[in-house]
Amino acid sequence: MELTNDLFLRAARGEAVERTPVWLMRQAGRILPEYRAVRGRLSGFKELVSTPELACEVTLQPVDLLGVDAAIIFSDILVIPEAMGLDYEMIEKKGPWFEKTVASEADLNQLREADPEEGLHYVLEAIRLTKQELNGRVPLIGFAGAPWTIFCYMVEGQGSKTFSKARKMLQQQPALSHRLLDLITRSTIRYLKAQIEVGADLVQVFDSWAGILGPHLYRTFALPYLQQICDAIQEAPITVFAKGAYYALPELGQLDCQVIGLDWCMDVAQARAAVGPEKSLQGNLDPSLLYAPKPDLKRAVKIMMDDFGSRGHIANLGHGVYPDTDPEQVKFFIQTVKEHKF
Amino acid sequence: MELTNDLFLRAARGEAVERTPVWLMRQAGRILPEYRAVRGRLSGFKELVSTPELACEVTLQPVDLLGVDAAIIFSDILVIPEAMGLDYEMIEKKGPWFEKTVASEADLNQLREADPEEGLHYVLEAIRLTKQELNGRVPLIGFAGAPWTIFCYMVEGQGSKTFSKARKMLQQQPALSHRLLDLITRSTIRYLKAQIEVGADLVQVFDSWAGILGPHLYRTFALPYLQQICDAIQEAPITVFAKGAYYALPELGQLDCQVIGLDWCMDVAQARAAVGPEKSLQGNLDPSLLYAPKPDLKRAVKIMMDDFGSRGHIANLGHGVYPDTDPEQVKFFIQTVKEHKF
Repeated sequence: MELTNDLFLRAARGEAVERTPVWLMRQAGRILPEYRAVRGRLSGFKELVSTPELACEVTLQPVDLLGVDAAIIFSDILVIPEAMGLDYEMIEKKGPWFEKTVASEADLNQLREADPEEGLHYVLEAIRLTKQELNGRVPLIGFAGAPWTIFCYMVEGQGSKTFSKARKMLQQQPALSHRLLDLITRSTIRYLKAQIEVGADLVQVFDSWAGILGPHLYRTFALPYLQQICDAIQEAPITVFAKGAYYALPELGQLDCQVIGLDWCMDVAQARAAVGPEKSLQGNLDPSLLYAPKPDLKRAVKIMMDDFGSRGHIANLGHGVYPDTDPEQVKFFIQTVKEHKF
Repeated sequence: MELTNDLFLRAARGEAVERTPVWLMRQAGRILPEYRAVRGRLSGFKELVSTPELACEVTLQPVDLLGVDAAIIFSDILVIPEAMGLDYEMIEKKGPWFEKTVASEADLNQLREADPEEGLHYVLEAIRLTKQELNGRVPLIGFAGAPWTIFCYMVEGQGSKTFSKARKMLQQQPALSHRLLDLITRSTIRYLKAQIEVGADLVQVFDSWAGILGPHLYRTFALPYLQQICDAIQEAPITVFAKGAYYALPELGQLDCQVIGLDWCMDVAQARAAVGPEKSLQGNLDPSLLYAPKPDLKRAVKIMMDDFGSRGHIANLGHGVYPDTDPEQVKFFIQTVKEHKF
């Protein structure tokens, strides 16, 4: 189906665009009263993730209500460990929690490579439905967690300030770590391919805990697996967002991907110099600026837009939008991007 | 009193040293069974912090047991908010918790500038005692949190992954934010001067949440207050450790301080280029390397030592030592630094 608005995909490929496209990480979610209304009727977060009609409904909300240039399927990066054999719960105000974790070879041997048609059919169905309902208005983004970030949760079993348990495994059991990372990577490749197969126009890989590894370990335990994913995914463009990994920008620039996401701490000119001229860049407004009075927000958006320039930029925040952000401020951010004159 | 071992202070001033001095952030604490024995007899963490004899005892433990080249007074950065009028509790496995926080001008008006002799006498007494007991063996480090980091806790009231509440205040109430940062700064200057007065040989300022602000906000809300502190403290050398603020290294290099601390994600050569040649650097081994087999740890220490070079370096981790680290590994780290040949 022809897209009415393909600004996002053209910017991802570095093509000239009439204006810079814009969307927000976590745009489908807690900032919208319409989302909270859906969520309030349910037993929990996982019911929403695993029910295609509901995931579709909340995926469409920001397209209808906020006017973003792309939709992102409502889901969670932890569906992959689950499809590999590690169930998780999402505990309100605390985050994810896994009853079983991976600590030994025996634990690893109980896991399987995720089969998207089996363990992740509900996400694929949500994507199919959403593509139908979008009816070509804007592109649909699929996504997965990066292998290192998924590894963090599978070893740690929950969120952590330091992920020192996951990092201990890298130090003490490097061969086991690589085996687990490899299994996650193979699962992720199949999953992303399946998402594209059923309609995702671009896929984004979130390396949320990239910033905790440091240059040497990132090169050993994260980049090779990102490279495998980028090399394998040729069916659609791919965005790599390695939060906090400023030190790996030159290597990220060498990946066979189309877009590199920047967090809000990264200086745009320095990031562009590190990444090189070929990739499009996505980001990177400080999410806390959405709390600011409109004139301050407007000023910051203008600076960001001029820093990135008119080509090869997808406007976004430098991290997911914070839950208590006023949707009116989000609309103003989107409008300011859309009206920007270079 | 003459110091038997003044390597740490000479390296801080950039002087030539026979060998690189070494200590560890959080060396006095949970890694040592001897510490846990003391702690186990007490009602809680705060009893330890507020009892000079006990704080002295656990401050000396790593000097006796690990052979570090400096002691750091056992205390907490949150003694400053407490002395300003915001009590905190330290909840086991959860971290700090404040019943009152600062949200408005009325809240701010209830706070006072900390008077070290009144609200912080127990820290000063612990420093006096520790200096006596050290008897010149190694220098004693005093410390405080940086104004931005203290602000985070006073506004947020507890730890946070994003400190979005504190960052919201910067955006929505910048004048109030500056007033609070100013009050924290004045309190901190008096506190650090008092620590030096009673015997601290060097003071370190910990900006633990520096990495969350980004370049622009760090320049507005963090650096000016660090500068005030550095300008005011002329009685002893000062170390500034701004964790995660790689983007501010050039500005940190302009502060009137002697040492800049580096976290483990920062590349040593790049950091040196950003900071300039004048400052000494402290750091920056990945704390997770203390989990590694000895040959791997040894190799990493050697690389680190050669990266920093023989002059103007204080060896340390790039963050506090993790609680479950084997003290034997810490000893091996220290020994490897001490035996390093350039």
